[in-house]
Amino acid sequence: MPSVARMISLAEKGTNGTAELLADLFKAGGRCRVVGITGSAGTGKSTLVAALARVLRARGSTVGILAIDPTSPISGGSILGDRIRMSDLTGDPGVFIRSMATRGSLGGLSRAAADAVTALDAAGIDVVLIETVGVGQDEVDVMAACHTTVVVCVPGLGDGVQALKAGLLEIADVYCVNKADLPGADGVVRDLRQLLSLGTLPSQPPDEHGWKVPVVSTVALQGQGAEALAQAIDDHHAWLVASGAIHGRERAMAVARIRNLALRLLLEDLEDPSDGAGFDALVEDVVHRRIDPLTAARGLVARVRGGATERS
Amino acid sequence: MPSVARMISLAEKGTNGTAELLADLFKAGGRCRVVGITGSAGTGKSTLVAALARVLRARGSTVGILAIDPTSPISGGSILGDRIRMSDLTGDPGVFIRSMATRGSLGGLSRAAADAVTALDAAGIDVVLIETVGVGQDEVDVMAACHTTVVVCVPGLGDGVQALKAGLLEIADVYCVNKADLPGADGVVRDLRQLLSLGTLPSQPPDEHGWKVPVVSTVALQGQGAEALAQAIDDHHAWLVASGAIHGRERAMAVARIRNLALRLLLEDLEDPSDGAGFDALVEDVVHRRIDPLTAARGLVARVRGGATERS
Repeated sequence: MPSVARMISLAEKGTNGTAELLADLFKAGGRCRVVGITGSAGTGKSTLVAALARVLRARGSTVGILAIDPTSPISGGSILGDRIRMSDLTGDPGVFIRSMATRGSLGGLSRAAADAVTALDAAGIDVVLIETVGVGQDEVDVMAACHTTVVVCVPGLGDGVQALKAGLLEIADVYCVNKADLPGADGVVRDLRQLLSLGTLPSQPPDEHGWKVPVVSTVALQGQGAEALAQAIDDHHAWLVASGAIHGRERAMAVARIRNLALRLLLEDLEDPSDGAGFDALVEDVVHRRIDPLTAARGLVARVRGGATERS
Repeated sequence: MPSVARMISLAEKGTNGTAELLADLFKAGGRCRVVGITGSAGTGKSTLVAALARVLRARGSTVGILAIDPTSPISGGSILGDRIRMSDLTGDPGVFIRSMATRGSLGGLSRAAADAVTALDAAGIDVVLIETVGVGQDEVDVMAACHTTVVVCVPGLGDGVQALKAGLLEIADVYCVNKADLPGADGVVRDLRQLLSLGTLPSQPPDEHGWKVPVVSTVALQGQGAEALAQAIDDHHAWLVASGAIHGRERAMAVARIRNLALRLLLEDLEDPSDGAGFDALVEDVVHRRIDPLTAARGLVARVRGGATERS
C-alpha cells in the first residue's frame, strides 16, 4: 500500500486505480475525528492548529493537519508559510502535515479534503485538523465534512457585525478568540457570548439545538488556552455522541460527499472531449446570443443522458 | 415586464417562467460591461465601488452595483452595511444597487450574479460593478464572469505573500491600493509592481499576455484616485477589444455559465424526491461503511441516467 502522503497525492490527481484503493481505505476506516478550524486571514489559525496539535500529541493522540490555502485555482500551488510555522512538529512521526491548494472546480476542494481524511483515517490517525482560510462556500463545504468546527477570530478584526457578515457564527461548534492578550479581547468574548446567547442560530440542524457554543480565549503563540480549546472540542464530540446528534452529522457528511462525487461524474460526462464540436457550437450560439445559456445547458444535459444510454 | 429588482428576485428564487423571461432578456442584451471588484474584508471595497459609481455617473453612464456578501449559506440573509455606505447613490435613478447573499449550493453564487447581470443588461445599464468579499472559489467563479477584475488591497494587510497566498495576483486585470494615505502605501505599490513585472503570471490565458496589469492608488473615502481607476478599467476594456482578447474572454464566460447551469440541472435529477428511498439507502450504506462514497455516487448517477431514459 502506498504511504499516506502518496495516497493523498494520488487522490488529488485522481489517477486510475485510486478509486478502488480509496474505497478499500474508506470501508476499513471510520475511527478518526475531524476538526475544522476556520477564520479570516491574520487570525493566527496556523499557530493555533500547531498549539492544538501539541496538546493532542502530549495526550498520545496521532494528528493529521490539512492546511488548505486558497491559492491559485489554476497553478494549484500552495505556499509553505503554514508549514514553516509548524516546523517543530514536522519531525514527529505521530504528526502528518499537508498543504492543499484549491482545486479550481466545483466542490473540488472538499472532495480532495475528504479523500485526504480517508487516507489519514486508514493510516490510524486519531484526529485530523483541517485549517481553512476565509469564509467562502468552499470553506463552508469543507467544514460540513467535520465533526467539530472551530471558528477563530481576533480582537480588532472580529467585531460582531464582521462575524455575522462572514456567516461564521452559524457554522461554529466552538468559538475561539485568539491573540487574547491584545486590547479589546474581553469585549470580543463578551460580544460573542451575547450574540450566541440570543437563541438558537437558524442554521443549526434541529437535533443539534442542545449544544451551547462555548467561547474559548487563546494566545496561541504561547500555547495559552490550547488545553481549554482541546477540551471544548472533546466536549462537543462527547455531546454529539451522548445526544445521538452524531448520527445526523455523519449522515449529512455522507450526503454531501456522495452528491459532490456524483456531480463530478456528471461533469466528466459534460466535458466528454468526444463531443467537443457539439459543445463548441453551443458556446458559439450563446456568445452570439442566438440562444441563452440555460437552453444551451439543457441541450448539453440531454446529450449526456443520450450518450449514457448508448453506452449502457 | 417585471422591474429589474423583481426580475433579479425571480432569478434568485428560480420561479417557474423565469427561465423563459431570462432567455428573452439574454438574447436582447450583450451591451453592458461587467467589472468585478474583489479583495479581503477591510480593504474598503464598498467605498471604492461607490466612488467609482460616482465617476461613472458623472460621465453619464448608468451603473448597476451587485454587492455579494458571503453570509449565511442557509439563511441567505445579507447585511445592509454596504448599502448604507452608498446612501448618496440610492436616490439616483441611474444607479441600481443590490445585495446578494451566497446561495449555499455549488456554483449558486455565480449563477445568481450572472442572472442579475442579464437583467441589468437588458434594462439598459451601461456598467455593472460586482463587489465580492474574500477569495474563495465562489469569488474566483464570479470574477470569471467579468470583463475586467479589479483586486483591492491596503497597506498593512496587503504584503506580497498575503496577495500571493490569496491567489489574487493571478486574477487581477487592474490592481488597486486603497487607503493610500496610510503609512506603507508606497511600499505596497512598489512591491506589487515588482511582483507583477516578474513576468507573465501563469493563470493568464495565452491571448491575454499582452496586457500589463496597472497598479492604481486610491483614497476611496475622499474619492481620490477614482478617476484614475475608472480610466484603468476603460484602458483594460479598450485593450480587450483592440487585441481581440475579448472574444476569448466572452467565450470563457459563456462556457462557465453553460457548465454551471448544466450542473444545476443534473443536480436537480440527483435530488429527485421521487427516488428518496433509494438515495437514503445509499447514504445509510456509506454511513455504515458497507460501500464507499464513490460507489454510491456511481449508483446515483446510473439512476439519473436510467430515470432520464424512462422519461424521454
